[in-house]
Parts: sequence; structure tokens; C-alpha cells
Amino acid sequence: METQDPEPIFPHELRDAWPALSRDERVESFRLVPHATADDFFLSLSAQEQAALLLSLGPGERRTWLRLLAPDDAVDVIQGTPADLRASLLHELDESTRREVQALMAYAEDHAGGLMNPRFARVRPDMTLDEAISYLRRQTREKVETVYYAYVLDPQQQLLGVVSLRQLFQAAPDKRVADVMSRDLITVAEDMDQEAVSRVFAEHALMAIPVVDAQRHMKGIVTVDDIVQVVREEATEDIQKVGGMEALDAPYFDVGLLAMLKKRAGWLLVLFVGEMLTATAMGHFEDEIAQAVVLALFVPLIISSGGNSGSQATTLIIRSLALGEIRLRDWWRVARREVLAGVALGTTLGLVGIVRILVWQGLFHSYGEHAVRVALTVGLSLVGVVTWGTLSGSMLPFLLRRLGFDPASASAPFVATLVDVSGLVIYFSAASLILKGTLL
Amino acid sequence: METQDPEPIFPHELRDAWPALSRDERVESFRLVPHATADDFFLSLSAQEQAALLLSLGPGERRTWLRLLAPDDAVDVIQGTPADLRASLLHELDESTRREVQALMAYAEDHAGGLMNPRFARVRPDMTLDEAISYLRRQTREKVETVYYAYVLDPQQQLLGVVSLRQLFQAAPDKRVADVMSRDLITVAEDMDQEAVSRVFAEHALMAIPVVDAQRHMKGIVTVDDIVQVVREEATEDIQKVGGMEALDAPYFDVGLLAMLKKRAGWLLVLFVGEMLTATAMGHFEDEIAQAVVLALFVPLIISSGGNSGSQATTLIIRSLALGEIRLRDWWRVARREVLAGVALGTTLGLVGIVRILVWQGLFHSYGEHAVRVALTVGLSLVGVVTWGTLSGSMLPFLLRRLGFDPASASAPFVATLVDVSGLVIYFSAASLILKGTLL
Repeated sequence: METQDPEPIFPHELRDAWPALSRDERVESFRLVPHATADDFFLSLSAQEQAALLLSLGPGERRTWLRLLAPDDAVDVIQGTPADLRASLLHELDESTRREVQALMAYAEDHAGGLMNPRFARVRPDMTLDEAISYLRRQTREKVETVYYAYVLDPQQQLLGVVSLRQLFQAAPDKRVADVMSRDLITVAEDMDQEAVSRVFAEHALMAIPVVDAQRHMKGIVTVDDIVQVVREEATEDIQKVGGMEALDAPYFDVGLLAMLKKRAGWLLVLFVGEMLTATAMGHFEDEIAQAVVLALFVPLIISSGGNSGSQATTLIIRSLALGEIRLRDWWRVARREVLAGVALGTTLGLVGIVRILVWQGLFHSYGEHAVRVALTVGLSLVGVVTWGTLSGSMLPFLLRRLGFDPASASAPFVATLVDVSGLVIYFSAASLILKGTLL
Repeated sequence: METQDPEPIFPHELRDAWPALSRDERVESFRLVPHATADDFFLSLSAQEQAALLLSLGPGERRTWLRLLAPDDAVDVIQGTPADLRASLLHELDESTRREVQALMAYAEDHAGGLMNPRFARVRPDMTLDEAISYLRRQTREKVETVYYAYVLDPQQQLLGVVSLRQLFQAAPDKRVADVMSRDLITVAEDMDQEAVSRVFAEHALMAIPVVDAQRHMKGIVTVDDIVQVVREEATEDIQKVGGMEALDAPYFDVGLLAMLKKRAGWLLVLFVGEMLTATAMGHFEDEIAQAVVLALFVPLIISSGGNSGSQATTLIIRSLALGEIRLRDWWRVARREVLAGVALGTTLGLVGIVRILVWQGLFHSYGEHAVRVALTVGLSLVGVVTWGTLSGSMLPFLLRRLGFDPASASAPFVATLVDVSGLVIYFSAASLILKGTLL
């Protein structure tokens, strides 16, 4: 049996095993990937994984792999390393790429400028299509990565139009670029937020979108493959906020226990302090509870129904706002609709609640001589609490966006806490109305 | 002033106004879009909007616009129309496209086969690069929409490799396709779920992925622009489920009030019935409450803290499972970590709770002579309830996936309801332990 040469590793096997490997195992097994496929493997890693791997490699290897990256990907890797190591990584790049990378690092990471690749295929409007194709072939050989579209620029680098490869191939070769190019272009501004950029991609089903400045000078392109990552990240952030915590910004096991606790404890404490108001509210009704202990039995049922209906409504509206399905100015239409929904849902739960109490009373005599009035109190309170929960849950995201906050902060637990206190007030008010002279 | 000709409409203006227009306004304004940009406008509409528009147009127009669509997009439009109209729409297509569309309609909508375009650029391994480029030019002129990659097939249509345009352009023109093609291909199976397909795109940053059957016959390509839509839809479903409702599958205002109520009432009723157990649990402690009404005051605080911590944990795990960051077999690692997190978070809340009760007692004498013991009861219960909430919230998604359900069904309200009942038991058990002989 020969054992000198370690067995080569297939990239997709290593890709699957990667998260479970230690730092040293990663370096060791990476070096075993056959040369022909190592490029593909390295490029398939996330920017965080690339950064971690680069820092574990020697200076010579580090340079080779760093130079493989397109400028926008190199920026992500460099920004993923500790601040004191960034200068040395920048130094590994060739002069012109370094300048591109430094220019890109000036943009906010979550803006179009921070997502774009400054290298794109360009042609001039007066070229013939045959000239344009051989000009593109030359650019491809040098450094332009993606040639789905070629952008037509005037001598001042202002964007005039775009031609797809298909258009170049289809038309007669002696036509001019200006004759076949599209002028009705979708563009995005350098400082457009990445969530807005992803919306533009979703609406127009494009492979790449040019980034322009205020004077329509072309700065780079954002490609759709980067947007898939953005959409996933933004959705993760929203889901985590809806669940009542700060966004993690990293995979579960990559976040240390302490950092994770900090992200979770903050909101939990805020909610806890808010929820203390329920103890205060309950304190106000202490005499009523002492007189009619039966009232206390339904407190969890009442407040959780308000919380659940509010959580549904807020989640629905947060997502619709994020997708652009509804806008700030739709708040009144939404409010009317949600009040109707709340009354309908509350009436349904209220009827079920009344039946439950009367059946239990019939079977076990659980609720004393005034059970019918207790049932009525619970039923009416449910209508009120669910309507209120639905309405406030649906309006809170609008309010937050109006005030300039992220609507997703109107998390399900936040709304539930808000509704709990008012739910108690609604319940005990209904009780004192209906039970006055009997139980109270 | 001339008024005969109506003013032309710019596509992006119409795109913005579209959702607010009535059916007739849409048809009317669509006909005013200048011919040169009408194609782009039509293609920028969603499949649902295209279907609605087509049904409002006359037969001649309908045929023109339907034939503009790639087969996979035509499928989406046809599947978006009422079943009795589908045959007549299919009839508008030319013979060969109709066959392609019918083959695609046999796939489930949310599988790779349902997303793919059956038209792709193909070359043979023994062609020279120059031959391959002119062969591609010919295919582009006919019907192949996207030429980011050309797929190398043997005579039996089995997939051998792939060449990017860049590779074709870069190498010497007399080399053979087989010399430059990549053989280490990422492919997906026809019946792979779209969420898994989107994960493959996110991991490999590709523009298109070939779909193959079990014998590696190439069936079509999935392009990344379709995946952006998939990722958004899947995230929306998950967020809506996390918020405690069935996924809507359509924009907020497109769902009728009744349909919306049905999607929301189901879960709300299930939760309500579950929450009724709290009334039963409270009933068991009725004597304790009657003896020490002060205990009732903290019931909402205790159970909501359990619910909030459970909601955080479940949301975190649901999303990490969906992104593939953690897998089923990681459950034990997660459980250990979440118990630690739960104890830490519970202790924090417990200490704050104790301080709150003692301060109020000092200021207002709110809680009687045994306030210190009450504070201790609340504090200890919080440690127990938060730890239990965190643990069960994090384990429930694993359990659901193990049983074959969608982990996202472990919604925040569902976990909160589950934790409410056990929270009451923990609280009153702690109370009888600590207050026995004093208050109880």
C-alpha cells in the first residue's frame, strides 16, 4: 500500500466538511485540493471564510489567493480582517487593484457602492458591432470578469446605453453600437441602500445593474449573484428582529456565547421592564382580584390572545413594507382593514371562550354562581383585546418607519408586551362593568 | 395646443403607478407605452400581473405578448390563470414552445424543474473555440436567451462540462472546447426543492446552474435572477410563520379579507385552545391565589418573560436551520449552549425583578410583610422559566424538522403558549416552596 502521497480532496467534499474543521485542518486540507479546482474552491468560500483562511496562510500563498479576487470581493475580505492587519493585506495587491479597492472601501458596506465591481465591459457608441465584439474579447482577456452586458459610455464616462451580448450577436455586424443599444436604462445611485437595490433586481429580473453618480458617470456594476446573498442577509436580520433580538450578523456557531448573550439580553431587558407595568396594572386591581379570584384565572388567556393577534399583524405588515408591497401612505387603508380583521378574529375567540367557560361550568361547576357573567366578561374582553392587539400591531411598523426606525423592530414580543398592559386594563374594566353588584 | 395624440407613457412611471391602477386603466395605459420599450415593460411585470393583463387583452395582442416570454416564464403566467383558460392560452403558442411549456408544467412549481428554462447554449466537446463561438452566435439568433455559460453535451445529451464566454474568448481560437471546459460542475436534480437550489446559488455565486436527471442528461438551466424571487418568497413565508400565521403567498392587498382571516384565524384558534390550559393550571392554584393575592400580580410578568426568551431562541434556530448554518445533528451542541444562555438570561432578569420588588416595597410598601420572600419567589421563578423557555424554544424547531414538518411552524406565539402553562407551574411550585408557613 502506498501512503506517501495524501489522497486528493474533492472540492465539494471539502466544502461540506469546512464548517466543522479547525483552523489548522482547514489550512491542511485546502493545500490538498488539486490545483485545477483550488481556484473554484477558494472562490466558493464566503468572505469571512476567505479572510480567516488567508490569515492562516504564509505571505506568498496569501498574495496568490488575494490577487485571485475581484476588487469588490477583495474589499469584503479585507474588511473582514482585524483593522491592524488590513494595511498589510492591501500591500499584497498590485498598484492598480489597490487603488480600486481603496476607492471601494470608502463606500458604506450596505450601499450600492459597497456592492459594486468597478470593472465592467465598456464600448463606444460609434463602434461597429464587429469592432465592439473584438474590443470586448480584448477586455475579457485582461480583467473584466462579467460580460453579460456591455455599457456604452461617452468620452466623459457618462452612461449612454447598454447592449447585451445577445444584441451584439444578433444584429448585422456592420451596424453601429448606437443603433442597437437600449437607452431606457435601469440604474442605481452609489448610496442606494442594498435592500432597495435588491428590490430593483427583483422587479426587473436583470443580471447586472450599473451604478452611476449624480452626473450619470458610470462607477461600476452590481451583479445579481451578490444580491442573492444580500436578500438572504436582510431576511435573516428581519426574522431575528421579529423574534425580538438584535440581528446577529453571523452564523449561529460563529458568534461567541458572550456576544450572543449581549445581543439577546438587551431586548429581553427592555421587554422585561415594559412588562413590569403589568405588575403595576395588576396592583391597581388587587382588590377586585381578592374579591373575585376567578378573574385571575383568565388573565394569561386574555393577554396572550392580544399578544398573538398583535404578533400576527405586526409580522405581516413588517414584511409587506420590506417587500414594498405596501407603503407608508397606505396606513389608513391598512388600519381600516385590520380593525375589521381584529373584530372578526376577536369575536371568534370570544365565542369559543364563552362556550369553554359554560361547558366547564356545566361539567365541573368551576366558576361559581356567576359563571355566565364571568363568561360574558371574558368574551367581551377578548373582542376588545384582540381588536386592539391587531390594530396596534399593524400600526406600530408604520409609526416606526415614519420616525426613521427599522419597522422590523416592532417585534412580536415588543407588540405582545405593549398589548399586555392595555389588555389587563380592558379586561378589568369589562369586569367591573359586568360584575358590579354581583361578584364585585 | 395639440391634443389628438395622447402623451406617451414612460415605462418606469407606469411601473410605479401599476399597483394602484384598475384593470381597465392598466390595459389603457399599457397600450400607450411606446413600442420600443413596451417589451421591457411587459417583461418587468410579475407573472401574476402578466397573467391578469393578458386576460384583459384581445386574442391578437394576447398572442404577441405571450410569445415574447421564455418557456419557463410562460409556464408561470399560464399557471397563474384560472384552470379553464389555460388550454386557450397554450393554444396561442407555437408548436415547439407549446411542447416545451407542457413538459415544464409537469414539474412541481417549487422544484428545480419548475424553475428551469429548457433553452440553453450548448456546444460539442470536439469543436474548436472559433467554431464554438460562431455556433453560439447562431443559437443566440434563434431562441437561446442567456449565454453566460455554454454547456458541453455528448451526442446522448449527457452533460460533460461547461465553458464560460470568458474562457471561450480568452484562449487561443484553435484550441478545442474539451481542452478549456471545466469538468467539476455544480448541478442540481430536477426535483430539488427551490430552497435547496437557492442555497446552492448562495454558496457558489453562480449565474446559472444546469438541471440534470439521474442519468446526467441535461434538462435546462436555472438562472440566478429567478432565484432572487425565490429567496424573497421563502423568507416571507418563514417570517409569516414565525409571526404565527399561515404563509399568505401573495401581496397584502391582493389577498381578500376573508381569505386573510382564514389564514390568521386557524393558528390563532389553535393557540387560544392551547392557552386555555393556563386557565386550567391557574384553577389548580386558586386556593393559593385566594390566600396570597400578591402572587397573581406577577403572573403576566413571569409568563411573558418565558414567552419572550422562547421566541428569541426559536427564531434564531429556525433561521439558522433554513440557511443551513446548523443541521439536525447539531441539536445537542445547541441544547447545551442554549441552557447556558437561558440560565444567564434568567439570572439577569431575576435580579432585576428582585430589585424592582424590593425598591417598590421600600417606597410604597406594595407587597406586604413577606415582600422579601415574594421577591425571592419571583426571582427564582424567572431563572427557571427563562431557562425552560430558551431550551424548549430552541429544541422545538429541531423536533419539528425531525418529524418532517417545517421548523418555521415553531412560531414565536406557539412557543410562548407552550411556555405559558409550564411557566405557571414553575412559578406556583416555587411559591409553595418559599412561602409555605408564611403567606401560604
